[in-house]
Amino acid sequence: MLKVGIVGGTGYTGVELLRILSQHPEVHIHAITSRKETGLAVAELFPSLRGRVPLKFCDPAEAELDKCAIVFFATPNGIAMQQVRSLLDAGVRVIDLAADFRIKDVAVWEKWYGMTHACPDLVEEAVYGLPEINRNEIKGARLIANPGCYPTAVQLGFLPLIEAGIVDLEHLIADAKSGVSGAGRNAAVHTLFAEASDNFKAYGVPGHRHLPEIRQGLSRMAGGPIGLTFVPHLTPMIRGIHATLYGRLSRDADLQAIYEKRYADEPFVDVLPAGAHPETRSVRGSNLCRIAVHRPQEGNTAVILSVTDNLVKGAAGQAVQNMNLMCGFPETLAIDHAPLLP
Amino acid sequence: MLKVGIVGGTGYTGVELLRILSQHPEVHIHAITSRKETGLAVAELFPSLRGRVPLKFCDPAEAELDKCAIVFFATPNGIAMQQVRSLLDAGVRVIDLAADFRIKDVAVWEKWYGMTHACPDLVEEAVYGLPEINRNEIKGARLIANPGCYPTAVQLGFLPLIEAGIVDLEHLIADAKSGVSGAGRNAAVHTLFAEASDNFKAYGVPGHRHLPEIRQGLSRMAGGPIGLTFVPHLTPMIRGIHATLYGRLSRDADLQAIYEKRYADEPFVDVLPAGAHPETRSVRGSNLCRIAVHRPQEGNTAVILSVTDNLVKGAAGQAVQNMNLMCGFPETLAIDHAPLLP
Amino acid sequence: MLKVGIVGGTGYTGVELLRILSQHPEVHIHAITSRKETGLAVAELFPSLRGRVPLKFCDPAEAELDKCAIVFFATPNGIAMQQVRSLLDAGVRVIDLAADFRIKDVAVWEKWYGMTHACPDLVEEAVYGLPEINRNEIKGARLIANPGCYPTAVQLGFLPLIEAGIVDLEHLIADAKSGVSGAGRNAAVHTLFAEASDNFKAYGVPGHRHLPEIRQGLSRMAGGPIGLTFVPHLTPMIRGIHATLYGRLSRDADLQAIYEKRYADEPFVDVLPAGAHPETRSVRGSNLCRIAVHRPQEGNTAVILSVTDNLVKGAAGQAVQNMNLMCGFPETLAIDHAPLLP
Amino acid sequence: MLKVGIVGGTGYTGVELLRILSQHPEVHIHAITSRKETGLAVAELFPSLRGRVPLKFCDPAEAELDKCAIVFFATPNGIAMQQVRSLLDAGVRVIDLAADFRIKDVAVWEKWYGMTHACPDLVEEAVYGLPEINRNEIKGARLIANPGCYPTAVQLGFLPLIEAGIVDLEHLIADAKSGVSGAGRNAAVHTLFAEASDNFKAYGVPGHRHLPEIRQGLSRMAGGPIGLTFVPHLTPMIRGIHATLYGRLSRDADLQAIYEKRYADEPFVDVLPAGAHPETRSVRGSNLCRIAVHRPQEGNTAVILSVTDNLVKGAAGQAVQNMNLMCGFPETLAIDHAPLLP
Repeated sequence: MLKVGIVGGTGYTGVELLRILSQHPEVHIHAITSRKETGLAVAELFPSLRGRVPLKFCDPAEAELDKCAIVFFATPNGIAMQQVRSLLDAGVRVIDLAADFRIKDVAVWEKWYGMTHACPDLVEEAVYGLPEINRNEIKGARLIANPGCYPTAVQLGFLPLIEAGIVDLEHLIADAKSGVSGAGRNAAVHTLFAEASDNFKAYGVPGHRHLPEIRQGLSRMAGGPIGLTFVPHLTPMIRGIHATLYGRLSRDADLQAIYEKRYADEPFVDVLPAGAHPETRSVRGSNLCRIAVHRPQEGNTAVILSVTDNLVKGAAGQAVQNMNLMCGFPETLAIDHAPLLP
Repeated sequence: MLKVGIVGGTGYTGVELLRILSQHPEVHIHAITSRKETGLAVAELFPSLRGRVPLKFCDPAEAELDKCAIVFFATPNGIAMQQVRSLLDAGVRVIDLAADFRIKDVAVWEKWYGMTHACPDLVEEAVYGLPEINRNEIKGARLIANPGCYPTAVQLGFLPLIEAGIVDLEHLIADAKSGVSGAGRNAAVHTLFAEASDNFKAYGVPGHRHLPEIRQGLSRMAGGPIGLTFVPHLTPMIRGIHATLYGRLSRDADLQAIYEKRYADEPFVDVLPAGAHPETRSVRGSNLCRIAVHRPQEGNTAVILSVTDNLVKGAAGQAVQNMNLMCGFPETLAIDHAPLLP
Repeated sequence: MLKVGIVGGTGYTGVELLRILSQHPEVHIHAITSRKETGLAVAELFPSLRGRVPLKFCDPAEAELDKCAIVFFATPNGIAMQQVRSLLDAGVRVIDLAADFRIKDVAVWEKWYGMTHACPDLVEEAVYGLPEINRNEIKGARLIANPGCYPTAVQLGFLPLIEAGIVDLEHLIADAKSGVSGAGRNAAVHTLFAEASDNFKAYGVPGHRHLPEIRQGLSRMAGGPIGLTFVPHLTPMIRGIHATLYGRLSRDADLQAIYEKRYADEPFVDVLPAGAHPETRSVRGSNLCRIAVHRPQEGNTAVILSVTDNLVKGAAGQAVQNMNLMCGFPETLAIDHAPLLP
Repeated sequence: MLKVGIVGGTGYTGVELLRILSQHPEVHIHAITSRKETGLAVAELFPSLRGRVPLKFCDPAEAELDKCAIVFFATPNGIAMQQVRSLLDAGVRVIDLAADFRIKDVAVWEKWYGMTHACPDLVEEAVYGLPEINRNEIKGARLIANPGCYPTAVQLGFLPLIEAGIVDLEHLIADAKSGVSGAGRNAAVHTLFAEASDNFKAYGVPGHRHLPEIRQGLSRMAGGPIGLTFVPHLTPMIRGIHATLYGRLSRDADLQAIYEKRYADEPFVDVLPAGAHPETRSVRGSNLCRIAVHRPQEGNTAVILSVTDNLVKGAAGQAVQNMNLMCGFPETLAIDHAPLLP
């Protein structure tokens, strides 16, 4: 059994990691840490895990994480970069679900995240954990930067279009909508039920931290700079991301065929039949990304619809997918459960 | 007191008309018709109106609508066009909340709505009831084509940008999100709570009936053809539309000043301060359209956020606004209640 | 115009008071205080009030509340009792929407609220502001204890049954369900959208602060001690309380007639026809309490269903109803708007 | 592999059966029938099952159900009783998720369901499929009457209390709340999102079809007639039942110990620690029933809180639990997934 640890497990990515890992046949959860909840039974904080996860949250100092083969960081931004080096030195491999290692240009990272980076050299080493792009690098990586929720849905949506070289790279638009769990489990007024329910709004239009991450990813696909407008919205549902992507076609092409071919062998990307509209609930609780391709009114604007569960393919599920790849397990192990509908 | 009638009042635009008109100090509701619910007390179908609307739904044949000064059609598409002429001939003025008279090009209408139009001459006469554009024509009109819900939010959002002549007219994008009440009060599987709750999806991407209506409106503003991609989405809330509009700027301009100036005298359009993000709940139950103007990352893409309550400014409230104008009442009479938040 | 002030206006009862009072034709809102938000425009915190409430939150020390005729306290428990005496001495009349003056037995209050009461003599003077019971006392009162949300719905539901003397007073059961706004606008994990949505739970079963308040009210009706089991639940909606009340009948009686007679002259209590089931949305945004009376299977258990909007009849609306009574305005002034449905 | 068939699979119990059975390692789904959707791919109706269930809905006449070892009926009431006999005669064992075989007294059934029963003899043979009561009978049964959703939650909640003989059997009260999926996937106005969202109501207070089923179950436990008031409510969530149960204690007892002991060996009943409040989301998507036991204010009223997922333990999950017992599989096989939270 593979020993794994979780640092900072009291948020939604934490409970989702626990849900998945506790059902993983090759994994033993060695420890889960929380400074704030040290001593509290996991099942008391997350009643869904009663009878399933017998652990208590423990103090990081006593977690003996160096005995783990893999450690997941489900911490706020800026924590993992303080602790990763000593774990790597001890031979532990690390998957960071936060943003510390996602942006290769450290100056850009520091600007958007408002802190000095503690280990720029590890940023360079870290592998961006999007298997559909970096599968081979992931297998051998010591340190994975697990992608953000919006970046996963947006990049998977744009990928075939950009790789095919048929879109105006100057004017890409990503209009994305997220369920409220994307904002985390922190007490905050704007995500209260009575604020976020029966309501819809955009946020972060002047600039959202996922913009540089997406821009970096699309630029790599394009092999050069791209222009992107990214507008995130908060929608009154718990889980789910729906990215509506717009690109101006630079030449005619069979979009449906391009997408189907690109993702033919991907276990977690499902290209819907032409004319379809994916729903977020069709991936609820699963690691799938479902994509539909449109060209409305036979015009020259491509409209790509891409949906994921932000806590699974957008966070914990993708982290376990990366772990599976790193450890030589079947890639879909423990993350192939059917979505929950209705 | 002004005698008004409502044809087809069992849907959401019907109940919303009743809510507003029953609180209008200058109006007497003479009759409300429904073939299906003839004889049923309105307050039994709509318990919110108990003690407030003492009417029963009556058979259209017995409604004596020709005794009304104003008749509202809250019927499915294709009904009003069968009945309007005789009412007009009897001196009744008509406000149609359905789509029968919205599209000036009858051939286009017939293609999108799948029926032959019964009175193309009245299409020509009808005034498109968007007061922010057609206030004077509305005052003297006999027949009002009340705008659709998406078209109201999208047109008010684009209007100043297009009038100012600073946007690439070939590539306008309207990414719009609607609450589920926009789909009406008809029994249907896809709008069941267990289907539409905790879910998000686009629909009608290949072509939605509001596309030609919006295109017609924007073309008039532009004084020529425009290119529009319109993608509607269903979001799990009862009321509200959020339109996120994208336009490529053709030259530099002070967008905030342009919007504030254009709407300075409009009682129902509120331009938010720079940097703001309007929420649909900020207009819940009210006739307001709130708009914010962005230019992310100082780029050349304008992002306009426009929110309305689809049942008020997007339907019944705007209809009453039109009635107020037609009858010489203060424009805001009975539609100036505060939004309900939370 | 009547000068009124609001102490502590940043919560949901605050914004609801503002919504109602800003539409009240006889009222001028002189000041609204908040220590935390001093200087912030009300319309910035509550975007629904843009263009309608031009005030800023001001420091309590600078509010000149003694110039008001009426001051509302929309503060946490324990604040009003510190400040009421000086206002009363200055000739100001006070309506406390918190719990400071609701419980006549100060020892009981201190036990349930965990603090020492600052002015027991004022507790004695205070009038419990449930107009259906205390209308005359309210008219002349200097200090009103505005009832809690659950207590309003439960007491109005049980009142005719107890007054008629036909129910076993030892075993009353109130199974109550509240929307999440009842928990207030404070940042807290358990009322986050992602926690409270798509979920249902009981809370406070061992003992909830509204238990002694309800018990006191029912005891007064009964003229002696009563036995009550009170179980509140959290239900995923914004507004609304649904109280399901159970009482064992001690003798046969025409329950429907008893309820209709008791509430025949009450402007805000609506007894539904026999067999009906009131919905919380039928009172959304209104000051109404709608009640239905059942006797399932012709047995000896009465089941009373009572619904209110917790922020209106359960808080701000009832406060304005009390103000109207105190000031000689028509009792329904500014609180007779139609409910918002859907 | 065990061949199973599903009759009538287009509803929510159908899709939930498919979700579970498609992940069951010992089962092959041979056919799923639907008269209305014959020829439609299952994955088109239920996009969550794309890539997982390759079947099409087939005509019942062509389903060759007699080749199955087990056939599930997920049909409306009154269908199974027409078809069961021929299947049983062919050696097929049947699990009916509808109500046809739940009520032993055929006259009572006919009164509540409004039809003549087609096979009273099979009613007698049928085993009520609540494993916590009838585990041994289930193992050998040919025909299982799978319990209703409310009856499961209510009976499991009352069971230890009644078996212990410490409650007044004349005055049991079950105040139950259900998510909207309990009303099925049929197009209907009252379960539309815009009707059922942000709303709460009781229904069926004069008499609900689950009343005789629950009464029969409690009577068997009690060994004689019992008196029950049952009030169901509709709450705006997709899945989940919360039953709040009230019973007057006839003598003192350690309720917590009684419940823990009764359910110590039950794999799907979880008795929470004293003082807890179970949430429906803690069982979302799982076959668990979680129960908490209270005695508020040390009085003589017991309050039992019992939660289930109405589509799993209240329908499809329990059906598979019964199948596992009938076929000698481990009882928890394929129904032991972790609940989905948040």
